[in-house]
Amino acid sequence: MTKQELFSNIKKKKSFLCIGLDTDITKIPKHLLSSEDPIFEFNKQIIDATHDLCVAYKPNTAFYEAEGLKGWQSLEKTINYINTNYPDQFTIADAKRGDIGNTSKMYAKAFLENLNFNSITVAPYMGEDSVNPFLEYKNKWVIVLALTSNQGSKDFQTNEVLSPSGGGRGRKTYEHILEISKKWGTSENMMYVVGATKAEMLSDIRKIIPNHFLLVPGVGAQGGSLQEVAKYGMNKECGLLVNSSRGIIYASSDKNFAEKAREEAVKLKKEMEILLEHFCS
Amino acid sequence: MTKQELFSNIKKKKSFLCIGLDTDITKIPKHLLSSEDPIFEFNKQIIDATHDLCVAYKPNTAFYEAEGLKGWQSLEKTINYINTNYPDQFTIADAKRGDIGNTSKMYAKAFLENLNFNSITVAPYMGEDSVNPFLEYKNKWVIVLALTSNQGSKDFQTNEVLSPSGGGRGRKTYEHILEISKKWGTSENMMYVVGATKAEMLSDIRKIIPNHFLLVPGVGAQGGSLQEVAKYGMNKECGLLVNSSRGIIYASSDKNFAEKAREEAVKLKKEMEILLEHFCS
Repeated sequence: MTKQELFSNIKKKKSFLCIGLDTDITKIPKHLLSSEDPIFEFNKQIIDATHDLCVAYKPNTAFYEAEGLKGWQSLEKTINYINTNYPDQFTIADAKRGDIGNTSKMYAKAFLENLNFNSITVAPYMGEDSVNPFLEYKNKWVIVLALTSNQGSKDFQTNEVLSPSGGGRGRKTYEHILEISKKWGTSENMMYVVGATKAEMLSDIRKIIPNHFLLVPGVGAQGGSLQEVAKYGMNKECGLLVNSSRGIIYASSDKNFAEKAREEAVKLKKEMEILLEHFCS
Repeated sequence: MTKQELFSNIKKKKSFLCIGLDTDITKIPKHLLSSEDPIFEFNKQIIDATHDLCVAYKPNTAFYEAEGLKGWQSLEKTINYINTNYPDQFTIADAKRGDIGNTSKMYAKAFLENLNFNSITVAPYMGEDSVNPFLEYKNKWVIVLALTSNQGSKDFQTNEVLSPSGGGRGRKTYEHILEISKKWGTSENMMYVVGATKAEMLSDIRKIIPNHFLLVPGVGAQGGSLQEVAKYGMNKECGLLVNSSRGIIYASSDKNFAEKAREEAVKLKKEMEILLEHFCS
Protein backbone atom coordinates (compact mmCIF):
# COMPACT_ATOMS: atom_id res chain seq x y z
CA MET A 1 0.00 0.00 0.00
CA THR A 2 1.30 3.47 -0.84
CA LYS A 3 1.18 6.46 1.48
CA GLN A 4 -1.36 8.08 -0.84
CA GLU A 5 -3.62 5.03 -0.67
CA LEU A 6 -3.38 4.95 3.11
CA PHE A 7 -4.28 8.64 3.35
CA SER A 8 -7.21 8.12 0.94
CA ASN A 9 -8.55 5.37 3.18
CA ILE A 10 -8.22 7.61 6.21
CA LYS A 11 -10.17 10.39 4.49
CA LYS A 12 -12.82 8.02 3.18
CA LYS A 13 -13.36 6.30 6.51
CA LYS A 14 -12.77 9.42 8.62
CA SER A 15 -10.66 7.31 10.89
CA PHE A 16 -7.00 6.70 11.65
CA LEU A 17 -7.72 3.81 13.95
CA CYS A 18 -5.55 0.71 14.06
CA ILE A 19 -6.92 -2.28 15.94
CA GLY A 20 -4.37 -4.43 17.71
CA LEU A 21 -5.06 -8.15 17.54
CA ASP A 22 -3.26 -9.19 20.76
CA THR A 23 -5.38 -12.29 20.89
CA ASP A 24 -4.79 -14.23 24.10
CA ILE A 25 -6.45 -17.64 24.32
CA THR A 26 -6.98 -17.16 28.07
CA LYS A 27 -8.91 -13.92 27.53
CA ILE A 28 -11.27 -14.69 24.69
CA PRO A 29 -14.91 -15.63 25.38
CA LYS A 30 -15.26 -19.20 26.63
CA HIS A 31 -17.88 -20.22 24.05
CA LEU A 32 -15.24 -19.87 21.30
CA LEU A 33 -12.94 -22.47 22.82
CA SER A 34 -14.91 -25.30 21.27
CA SER A 35 -14.40 -24.00 17.73
CA GLU A 36 -11.66 -25.51 15.57
CA ASP A 37 -9.40 -22.46 15.76
CA PRO A 38 -10.58 -20.21 18.62
CA ILE A 39 -7.98 -17.49 18.02
CA PHE A 40 -8.84 -17.15 14.35
CA GLU A 41 -12.57 -17.35 15.07
CA PHE A 42 -12.21 -14.52 17.60
CA ASN A 43 -10.18 -12.39 15.17
CA LYS A 44 -12.58 -13.03 12.30
CA GLN A 45 -15.57 -11.85 14.32
CA ILE A 46 -13.68 -8.79 15.62
CA ILE A 47 -12.57 -7.90 12.09
CA ASP A 48 -16.03 -8.37 10.57
CA ALA A 49 -17.51 -6.15 13.29
CA THR A 50 -14.97 -3.32 13.03
CA HIS A 51 -13.50 -3.15 9.51
CA ASP A 52 -15.51 -0.08 8.45
CA LEU A 53 -14.27 1.87 11.49
CA CYS A 54 -10.52 1.35 11.18
CA VAL A 55 -7.83 1.59 8.53
CA ALA A 56 -5.34 -0.91 9.95
CA TYR A 57 -5.03 -4.18 11.85
CA LYS A 58 -1.98 -5.08 13.89
CA PRO A 59 -1.59 -8.70 15.03
CA ASN A 60 1.01 -8.93 17.78
CA THR A 61 3.12 -11.94 16.83
CA ALA A 62 4.01 -12.88 20.44
CA PHE A 63 0.45 -13.93 21.18
CA TYR A 64 0.46 -16.32 18.22
CA GLU A 65 3.95 -17.71 18.86
CA ALA A 66 2.92 -18.49 22.44
CA GLU A 67 0.49 -21.06 20.97
CA GLY A 68 3.21 -22.71 18.88
CA LEU A 69 2.31 -24.29 15.54
CA LYS A 70 -1.41 -23.76 16.05
CA GLY A 71 -0.79 -20.11 16.82
CA TRP A 72 1.29 -19.60 13.69
CA GLN A 73 -1.55 -21.15 11.76
CA SER A 74 -4.06 -18.75 13.37
CA LEU A 75 -1.78 -15.86 12.38
CA GLU A 76 -1.63 -17.09 8.77
CA LYS A 77 -5.40 -17.47 8.61
CA THR A 78 -5.92 -14.02 10.14
CA ILE A 79 -3.70 -12.15 7.69
CA ASN A 80 -5.13 -14.12 4.77
CA TYR A 81 -8.64 -13.32 5.92
CA ILE A 82 -7.89 -9.59 6.06
CA ASN A 83 -6.04 -9.53 2.73
CA THR A 84 -8.82 -11.45 0.97
CA ASN A 85 -11.88 -9.74 2.43
CA TYR A 86 -10.65 -6.27 3.35
CA PRO A 87 -7.73 -5.49 1.03
CA ASP A 88 -7.95 -1.77 1.84
CA GLN A 89 -6.75 -2.45 5.42
CA PHE A 90 -3.13 -1.58 6.17
CA THR A 91 -1.68 -4.61 7.95
CA ILE A 92 1.09 -4.49 10.53
CA ALA A 93 3.05 -7.49 11.79
CA ASP A 94 3.89 -6.23 15.26
CA ALA A 95 6.96 -8.41 15.53
CA LYS A 96 9.71 -6.08 16.84
CA ARG A 97 12.32 -7.98 14.80
CA GLY A 98 15.81 -6.88 13.73
CA ASP A 99 19.09 -8.74 13.26
CA ILE A 100 22.16 -8.72 11.01
CA GLY A 101 21.45 -8.30 7.30
CA ASN A 102 21.20 -11.93 6.18
CA THR A 103 18.87 -12.65 9.11
CA SER A 104 16.65 -9.58 8.71
CA LYS A 105 16.28 -10.66 5.08
CA MET A 106 14.70 -13.88 6.36
CA TYR A 107 12.33 -11.97 8.67
CA ALA A 108 11.37 -9.74 5.73
CA LYS A 109 10.63 -12.84 3.66
CA ALA A 110 8.55 -14.32 6.50
CA PHE A 111 6.35 -11.30 7.10
CA LEU A 112 6.36 -9.07 4.00
CA GLU A 113 6.50 -11.79 1.37
CA ASN A 114 5.08 -15.09 2.65
CA LEU A 115 2.49 -13.74 5.08
CA ASN A 116 2.09 -10.66 2.87
CA PHE A 117 1.77 -8.03 5.60
CA ASN A 118 2.03 -4.41 4.46
CA SER A 119 4.50 -3.64 7.22
CA ILE A 120 6.52 -4.92 10.17
CA THR A 121 7.72 -3.27 13.38
CA VAL A 122 11.50 -3.36 13.84
CA ALA A 123 13.84 -2.58 16.75
CA PRO A 124 16.60 -0.14 15.74
CA TYR A 125 19.42 -1.21 18.05
CA MET A 126 21.41 -3.12 15.41
CA GLY A 127 21.46 -0.20 12.96
CA GLU A 128 21.10 0.36 9.24
CA ASP A 129 21.93 -3.09 7.85
CA SER A 130 19.36 -4.63 10.20
CA VAL A 131 16.62 -2.43 8.72
CA ASN A 132 17.58 -2.25 5.02
CA PRO A 133 16.35 -5.72 4.00
CA PHE A 134 12.80 -4.71 4.94
CA LEU A 135 13.04 -1.62 2.72
CA GLU A 136 13.70 -3.64 -0.41
CA TYR A 137 10.03 -4.58 -0.81
CA LYS A 138 8.07 -2.22 -3.02
CA ASN A 139 5.04 -0.57 -1.37
CA LYS A 140 5.85 -2.28 1.92
CA TRP A 141 6.81 -0.50 5.11
CA VAL A 142 9.14 -0.81 8.04
CA ILE A 143 7.96 0.71 11.31
CA VAL A 144 10.94 1.53 13.51
CA LEU A 145 10.65 1.74 17.30
CA ALA A 146 11.51 5.28 18.38
CA LEU A 147 9.76 6.04 21.65
CA THR A 148 7.66 3.39 23.33
CA SER A 149 5.02 3.93 25.99
CA ASN A 150 6.17 1.44 28.63
CA GLN A 151 7.98 2.20 31.88
CA GLY A 152 11.24 0.78 30.47
CA SER A 153 11.29 3.40 27.72
CA LYS A 154 13.03 5.62 30.28
CA ASP A 155 15.94 3.20 30.65
CA PHE A 156 17.63 3.95 27.32
CA GLN A 157 15.35 5.74 24.86
CA THR A 158 15.45 9.08 26.64
CA ASN A 159 19.16 9.05 27.55
CA GLU A 160 21.04 12.01 26.15
CA VAL A 161 23.58 11.15 23.49
CA LEU A 162 26.45 13.31 22.34
CA SER A 163 25.70 13.34 18.64
CA PRO A 164 27.27 15.45 15.92
CA SER A 165 23.74 15.99 14.55
CA GLY A 166 22.81 17.73 17.79
CA GLY A 167 25.44 20.40 17.09
CA GLY A 168 27.42 19.30 20.14
CA ARG A 169 24.42 19.61 22.42
CA GLY A 170 22.81 16.57 23.94
CA ARG A 171 20.02 14.88 22.08
CA LYS A 172 17.82 12.10 23.35
CA THR A 173 18.57 8.63 22.03
CA TYR A 174 15.20 8.31 20.32
CA GLU A 175 15.65 11.69 18.62
CA HIS A 176 19.09 10.61 17.46
CA ILE A 177 17.60 7.37 16.10
CA LEU A 178 14.98 9.36 14.18
CA GLU A 179 17.62 11.71 12.81
CA ILE A 180 19.90 8.92 11.57
CA SER A 181 17.36 6.32 10.49
CA LYS A 182 15.15 8.66 8.46
CA LYS A 183 17.94 8.69 5.86
CA TRP A 184 17.68 4.92 5.35
CA GLY A 185 14.34 5.20 3.58
CA THR A 186 11.67 7.81 2.95
CA SER A 187 8.32 8.78 4.41
CA GLU A 188 6.90 6.51 1.69
CA ASN A 189 8.34 3.33 3.20
CA MET A 190 9.17 4.09 6.83
CA MET A 191 7.01 4.86 9.84
CA TYR A 192 7.90 5.19 13.53
CA VAL A 193 6.42 3.86 16.74
CA VAL A 194 5.87 6.78 19.11
CA GLY A 195 4.22 6.11 22.47
CA ALA A 196 1.15 8.17 23.22
CA THR A 197 1.94 8.77 26.88
CA LYS A 198 4.49 11.33 25.69
CA ALA A 199 2.19 13.50 23.58
CA GLU A 200 4.12 16.67 24.42
CA MET A 201 7.23 15.15 22.84
CA LEU A 202 5.39 14.82 19.54
CA SER A 203 5.98 18.41 18.50
CA ASP A 204 9.74 17.95 18.85
CA ILE A 205 9.49 14.68 16.94
CA ARG A 206 7.58 16.45 14.17
CA LYS A 207 10.51 18.87 13.78
CA ILE A 208 12.72 15.89 12.87
CA ILE A 209 10.23 13.88 10.82
CA PRO A 210 7.43 16.19 9.64
CA ASN A 211 6.11 13.84 6.94
CA HIS A 212 6.38 10.32 8.32
CA PHE A 213 3.43 8.35 9.58
CA LEU A 214 3.61 7.56 13.29
CA LEU A 215 2.17 4.40 14.78
CA VAL A 216 0.94 5.41 18.21
CA PRO A 217 0.27 2.62 20.71
CA GLY A 218 -0.90 3.24 24.20
CA VAL A 219 -4.17 5.03 23.66
CA GLY A 220 -6.56 3.29 26.02
CA ALA A 221 -5.08 0.58 28.25
CA GLN A 222 -1.69 2.32 28.29
CA GLY A 223 -3.30 5.68 29.04
CA GLY A 224 -2.62 8.20 26.27
CA SER A 225 -4.94 11.02 25.19
CA LEU A 226 -6.13 10.93 21.61
CA GLN A 227 -6.70 14.65 21.48
CA GLU A 228 -3.16 15.47 22.59
CA VAL A 229 -1.74 13.04 20.06
CA ALA A 230 -3.68 14.67 17.23
CA LYS A 231 -2.85 18.19 18.39
CA TYR A 232 0.90 17.61 18.46
CA GLY A 233 1.33 14.78 15.99
CA MET A 234 -1.02 15.22 13.05
CA ASN A 235 0.26 16.53 9.75
CA LYS A 236 -1.41 17.47 6.46
CA GLU A 237 -1.71 13.81 5.40
CA CYS A 238 -2.92 12.83 8.87
CA GLY A 239 0.40 11.09 9.55
CA LEU A 240 -1.03 9.07 12.42
CA LEU A 241 -2.18 5.53 12.99
CA VAL A 242 -3.45 5.29 16.53
CA ASN A 243 -3.68 1.79 17.92
CA SER A 244 -6.01 0.34 20.50
CA SER A 245 -5.83 -3.35 21.37
CA ARG A 246 -7.21 -4.47 24.72
CA GLY A 247 -9.65 -1.56 25.04
CA ILE A 248 -11.46 -2.76 21.92
CA ILE A 249 -10.99 -6.51 21.59
CA TYR A 250 -11.63 -7.32 25.25
CA ALA A 251 -14.51 -4.87 25.75
CA SER A 252 -16.64 -7.87 26.68
CA SER A 253 -15.90 -11.52 27.39
CA ASP A 254 -19.45 -12.60 26.63
CA LYS A 255 -21.12 -13.81 23.46
CA ASN A 256 -21.64 -10.17 22.49
CA PHE A 257 -17.86 -9.49 22.42
CA ALA A 258 -17.80 -8.43 18.75
CA GLU A 259 -20.71 -6.04 19.18
CA LYS A 260 -19.08 -4.50 22.28
CA ALA A 261 -15.75 -4.24 20.44
CA ARG A 262 -17.58 -2.34 17.72
CA GLU A 263 -19.06 0.04 20.27
CA GLU A 264 -15.58 0.89 21.59
CA ALA A 265 -14.25 1.31 18.06
CA VAL A 266 -17.16 3.59 17.21
CA LYS A 267 -16.29 5.85 20.18
CA LEU A 268 -12.69 6.22 19.03
CA LYS A 269 -13.69 6.62 15.39
CA LYS A 270 -16.11 9.45 16.24
CA GLU A 271 -13.42 11.25 18.19
CA MET A 272 -11.04 10.76 15.29
CA GLU A 273 -13.53 12.16 12.80
CA ILE A 274 -13.69 15.41 14.78
CA LEU A 275 -9.91 15.57 15.16
CA LEU A 276 -9.37 15.01 11.42
CA GLU A 277 -11.83 17.77 10.66
CA HIS A 278 -10.08 20.10 13.11
CA PHE A 279 -6.39 19.41 12.47
CA CYS A 280 -6.26 17.96 8.95
CA SER A 281 -8.52 19.67 6.47
CA MET B 1 20.67 -25.22 33.10
CA THR B 2 22.65 -23.50 35.87
CA LYS B 3 25.88 -21.60 35.35
CA GLN B 4 27.71 -24.29 37.27
CA GLU B 5 26.35 -27.00 34.98
CA LEU B 6 27.32 -25.03 31.91
CA PHE B 7 30.85 -24.52 33.20
CA SER B 8 31.09 -28.24 34.06
CA ASN B 9 30.16 -29.13 30.50
CA ILE B 10 32.77 -26.72 29.17
CA LYS B 11 35.47 -28.30 31.34
CA LYS B 12 34.39 -31.83 30.48
CA LYS B 13 34.24 -31.22 26.74
CA LYS B 14 37.17 -28.77 26.68
CA SER B 15 35.10 -26.57 24.43
CA PHE B 16 33.08 -23.38 24.62
CA LEU B 17 31.75 -23.76 21.11
CA CYS B 18 28.18 -22.85 20.20
CA ILE B 19 26.95 -23.99 16.80
CA GLY B 20 24.49 -21.69 15.09
CA LEU B 21 21.72 -23.47 13.22
CA ASP B 22 20.97 -20.77 10.63
CA THR B 23 19.47 -23.40 8.39
CA ASP B 24 18.58 -21.96 5.00
CA ILE B 25 16.64 -24.27 2.70
CA THR B 26 18.42 -22.78 -0.33
CA LYS B 27 21.85 -23.61 1.08
CA ILE B 28 21.49 -27.16 2.33
CA PRO B 29 22.66 -30.11 0.22
CA LYS B 30 20.28 -30.89 -2.64
CA HIS B 31 19.91 -34.58 -1.78
CA LEU B 32 18.10 -33.62 1.45
CA LEU B 33 15.32 -31.78 -0.36
CA SER B 34 13.45 -35.01 -1.04
CA SER B 35 13.21 -35.88 2.65
CA GLU B 36 10.00 -35.12 4.52
CA ASP B 37 11.49 -32.24 6.52
CA PRO B 38 14.77 -31.18 4.89
CA ILE B 39 15.58 -28.49 7.46
CA PHE B 40 15.15 -30.85 10.39
CA GLU B 41 17.00 -33.64 8.60
CA PHE B 42 19.94 -31.29 7.98
CA ASN B 43 19.96 -30.12 11.61
CA LYS B 44 19.73 -33.68 12.92
CA GLN B 45 22.74 -34.79 10.94
CA ILE B 46 24.74 -31.70 11.91
CA ILE B 47 23.88 -32.21 15.57
CA ASP B 48 24.68 -35.92 15.54
CA ALA B 49 28.05 -35.17 13.93
CA THR B 50 29.08 -32.35 16.27
CA HIS B 51 27.44 -32.77 19.70
CA ASP B 52 30.60 -33.98 21.43
CA LEU B 53 32.54 -30.92 20.24
CA CYS B 54 30.23 -28.14 21.37
CA VAL B 55 28.33 -27.12 24.48
CA ALA B 56 25.52 -25.15 22.87
CA TYR B 57 23.25 -24.98 19.82
CA LYS B 58 21.67 -21.77 18.62
CA PRO B 59 18.85 -22.00 16.09
CA ASN B 60 18.24 -18.60 14.49
CA THR B 61 14.46 -18.23 14.47
CA ALA B 62 14.35 -16.05 11.33
CA PHE B 63 15.42 -18.95 9.13
CA TYR B 64 12.55 -21.08 10.42
CA GLU B 65 9.92 -18.33 10.27
CA ALA B 66 10.87 -17.70 6.65
CA GLU B 67 9.47 -21.17 5.89
CA GLY B 68 6.17 -20.45 7.64
CA LEU B 69 4.29 -23.27 9.36
CA LYS B 70 6.67 -25.92 8.07
CA GLY B 71 9.61 -23.93 9.37
CA TRP B 72 8.09 -23.56 12.82
CA GLN B 73 7.58 -27.32 12.82
CA SER B 74 11.25 -27.87 11.89
CA LEU B 75 12.24 -25.59 14.78
CA GLU B 76 10.06 -27.57 17.20
CA LYS B 77 11.50 -30.86 16.01
CA THR B 78 15.05 -29.53 16.24
CA ILE B 79 14.79 -28.29 19.83
CA ASN B 80 12.97 -31.47 20.87
CA TYR B 81 15.67 -33.58 19.24
CA ILE B 82 18.42 -31.76 21.14
CA ASN B 83 16.56 -31.80 24.46
CA THR B 84 15.79 -35.51 24.16
CA ASN B 85 19.10 -36.81 22.85
CA TYR B 86 21.66 -34.32 24.12
CA PRO B 87 20.19 -32.79 27.28
CA ASP B 88 23.59 -31.43 28.34
CA GLN B 89 23.53 -28.96 25.43
CA PHE B 90 22.75 -25.33 26.31
CA THR B 91 20.10 -24.21 23.86
CA ILE B 92 19.66 -20.66 22.61
CA ALA B 93 16.63 -19.36 20.73
CA ASP B 94 18.31 -16.62 18.72
CA ALA B 95 15.13 -14.62 18.39
CA LYS B 96 16.12 -11.02 19.27
CA ARG B 97 12.70 -10.43 20.82
CA GLY B 98 11.59 -7.73 23.28
CA ASP B 99 8.34 -5.83 23.77
CA ILE B 100 6.20 -4.37 26.58
CA GLY B 101 5.76 -6.62 29.62
CA ASN B 102 2.56 -8.45 28.71
CA THR B 103 3.97 -9.19 25.26
CA SER B 104 7.45 -10.26 26.38
CA LYS B 105 5.64 -12.63 28.73
CA MET B 106 4.15 -14.31 25.67
CA TYR B 107 7.55 -14.57 23.96
CA ALA B 108 8.95 -16.10 27.16
CA LYS B 109 6.13 -18.63 27.16
CA ALA B 110 6.76 -19.44 23.48
CA PHE B 111 10.49 -20.05 23.77
CA LEU B 112 11.39 -20.85 27.39
CA GLU B 113 8.28 -22.81 28.29
CA ASN B 114 6.64 -24.38 25.23
CA LEU B 115 9.72 -24.92 23.09
CA ASN B 116 11.78 -25.37 26.26
CA PHE B 117 14.93 -23.55 25.17
CA ASN B 118 17.44 -22.77 27.93
CA SER B 119 17.71 -19.18 26.78
CA ILE B 120 16.60 -16.50 24.34
CA THR B 121 18.33 -13.47 22.85
CA VAL B 122 16.58 -10.16 23.58
CA ALA B 123 16.99 -6.61 22.26
CA PRO B 124 17.38 -4.08 25.10
CA TYR B 125 15.83 -0.98 23.54
CA MET B 126 12.50 -1.17 25.40
CA GLY B 127 14.13 -1.42 28.84
CA GLU B 128 13.65 -3.34 32.05
CA ASP B 129 10.00 -4.38 31.81
CA SER B 130 10.67 -5.82 28.35
CA VAL B 131 13.36 -8.13 29.81
CA ASN B 132 11.92 -9.05 33.22
CA PRO B 133 9.34 -11.61 32.02
CA PHE B 134 12.17 -13.78 30.66
CA LEU B 135 13.92 -13.71 34.04
CA GLU B 136 10.99 -15.27 35.85
CA TYR B 137 11.85 -18.76 34.62
CA LYS B 138 14.08 -20.72 36.98
CA ASN B 139 17.37 -21.92 35.49
CA LYS B 140 16.59 -20.20 32.21
CA TRP B 141 18.55 -17.33 30.73
CA VAL B 142 18.07 -14.10 28.87
CA ILE B 143 20.88 -13.05 26.55
CA VAL B 144 20.78 -9.28 26.03
CA LEU B 145 22.25 -7.64 22.93
CA ALA B 146 25.06 -5.34 23.98
CA LEU B 147 27.54 -4.98 21.14
CA THR B 148 26.87 -6.71 17.83
CA SER B 149 29.40 -7.45 15.11
CA ASN B 150 27.58 -6.01 12.09
CA GLN B 151 28.31 -2.73 10.32
CA GLY B 152 25.17 -1.13 11.79
CA SER B 153 26.46 -1.63 15.34
CA LYS B 154 28.24 1.71 14.81
CA ASP B 155 24.95 3.54 14.22
CA PHE B 156 23.75 3.58 17.84
CA GLN B 157 25.58 1.07 20.04
CA THR B 158 28.81 3.02 20.20
CA ASN B 159 27.29 6.49 20.56
CA GLU B 160 28.36 8.28 23.70
CA VAL B 161 25.61 8.88 26.22
CA LEU B 162 25.61 11.21 29.19
CA SER B 163 25.00 8.71 31.95
CA PRO B 164 25.13 9.30 35.68
CA SER B 165 26.90 5.95 35.96
CA GLY B 166 29.74 7.38 33.88
CA GLY B 167 30.37 10.00 36.56
CA GLY B 168 29.30 12.78 34.21
CA ARG B 169 31.70 11.62 31.53
CA GLY B 170 30.43 10.11 28.32
CA ARG B 171 29.94 6.40 28.14
CA LYS B 172 29.15 4.32 25.09
CA THR B 173 25.53 3.23 24.73
CA TYR B 174 26.39 -0.47 24.97
CA GLU B 175 28.42 0.13 28.14
CA HIS B 176 25.52 2.07 29.61
CA ILE B 177 23.17 -0.79 28.71
CA LEU B 178 25.49 -3.27 30.46
CA GLU B 179 25.72 -1.05 33.51
CA ILE B 180 21.96 -0.61 33.88
CA SER B 181 20.72 -4.01 32.76
CA LYS B 182 23.09 -6.09 34.89
CA LYS B 183 20.99 -5.02 37.89
CA TRP B 184 17.86 -6.62 36.42
CA GLY B 185 19.15 -10.13 37.00
CA THR B 186 22.40 -11.83 37.96
CA SER B 187 25.25 -13.60 36.22
CA GLU B 188 23.24 -16.76 36.92
CA ASN B 189 20.39 -15.83 34.59
CA MET B 190 21.71 -13.16 32.21
CA MET B 191 24.30 -13.27 29.46
CA TYR B 192 25.26 -10.68 26.85
CA VAL B 193 25.86 -10.75 23.12
CA VAL B 194 29.24 -9.18 22.41
CA GLY B 195 30.50 -9.13 18.81
CA ALA B 196 33.90 -10.67 18.26
CA THR B 197 35.13 -8.09 15.79
CA LYS B 198 35.64 -5.78 18.77
CA ALA B 199 37.89 -8.03 20.86
CA GLU B 200 39.83 -5.08 22.26
CA MET B 201 36.62 -3.73 23.77
CA LEU B 202 36.20 -6.94 25.76
CA SER B 203 38.56 -5.86 28.52
CA ASP B 204 36.48 -2.73 29.14
CA ILE B 205 33.34 -4.84 29.08
CA ARG B 206 34.85 -7.21 31.63
CA LYS B 207 35.34 -4.25 34.00
CA ILE B 208 31.55 -3.77 33.99
CA ILE B 209 30.48 -7.42 33.96
CA PRO B 210 33.36 -9.59 35.20
CA ASN B 211 31.24 -12.67 35.90
CA HIS B 212 28.63 -12.87 33.15
CA PHE B 213 28.81 -15.27 30.27
CA LEU B 214 29.21 -13.61 26.88
CA LEU B 215 27.75 -15.02 23.71
CA VAL B 216 30.21 -14.10 20.99
CA PRO B 217 29.00 -14.29 17.41
CA GLY B 218 31.10 -13.40 14.46
CA VAL B 219 34.01 -15.79 14.78
CA GLY B 220 34.45 -17.15 11.28
CA ALA B 221 32.16 -15.70 8.60
CA GLN B 222 31.97 -12.35 10.43
CA GLY B 223 35.73 -12.29 10.93
CA GLY B 224 36.65 -12.31 14.62
CA SER B 225 39.74 -13.89 16.16
CA LEU B 226 39.16 -16.61 18.72
CA GLN B 227 42.46 -16.01 20.42
CA GLU B 228 41.77 -12.30 20.97
CA VAL B 229 38.33 -13.10 22.33
CA ALA B 230 39.74 -15.57 24.85
CA LYS B 231 42.57 -13.26 25.83
CA TYR B 232 40.33 -10.31 26.64
CA GLY B 233 37.04 -11.99 27.44
CA MET B 234 37.64 -15.21 29.35
CA ASN B 235 37.10 -15.32 33.09
CA LYS B 236 37.67 -17.98 35.74
CA GLU B 237 34.50 -19.86 34.78
CA CYS B 238 35.31 -19.49 31.09
CA GLY B 239 32.50 -16.95 30.68
CA LEU B 240 32.40 -17.38 26.92
CA LEU B 241 30.21 -19.13 24.41
CA VAL B 242 31.70 -18.55 20.98
CA ASN B 243 29.35 -19.14 18.11
CA SER B 244 30.06 -20.26 14.59
CA SER B 245 27.20 -20.81 12.15
CA ARG B 246 27.95 -20.68 8.44
CA GLY B 247 31.62 -21.66 8.84
CA ILE B 248 30.55 -25.00 10.27
CA ILE B 249 27.15 -25.92 8.89
CA TYR B 250 27.90 -24.93 5.29
CA ALA B 251 31.44 -26.33 5.18
CA SER B 252 30.27 -28.55 2.34
CA SER B 253 27.13 -28.71 0.22
CA ASP B 254 27.72 -32.33 -0.75
CA LYS B 255 26.56 -35.57 0.80
CA ASN B 256 29.51 -35.39 3.18
CA PHE B 257 28.25 -32.10 4.70
CA ALA B 258 27.96 -33.47 8.24
CA GLU B 259 31.45 -34.95 8.17
CA LYS B 260 32.89 -31.66 6.85
CA ALA B 261 30.95 -29.72 9.48
CA ARG B 262 32.54 -31.95 12.09
CA GLU B 263 36.00 -31.21 10.69
CA GLU B 264 35.43 -27.46 11.05
CA ALA B 265 34.06 -27.92 14.56
CA VAL B 266 37.09 -30.04 15.48
CA LYS B 267 39.41 -27.22 14.37
CA LEU B 268 37.65 -24.69 16.59
CA LYS B 269 37.35 -27.13 19.48
CA LYS B 270 41.10 -27.86 19.41
CA GLU B 271 41.90 -24.17 19.47
CA MET B 272 39.45 -23.73 22.35
CA GLU B 273 41.05 -26.55 24.32
CA ILE B 274 44.39 -24.76 24.20
CA LEU B 275 42.83 -21.42 25.11
CA LEU B 276 40.97 -22.91 28.08
CA GLU B 277 44.20 -24.48 29.28
CA HIS B 278 46.01 -21.17 28.92
CA PHE B 279 43.48 -18.63 30.21
CA CYS B 280 41.17 -20.64 32.46
CA SER B 281 42.88 -23.20 34.63
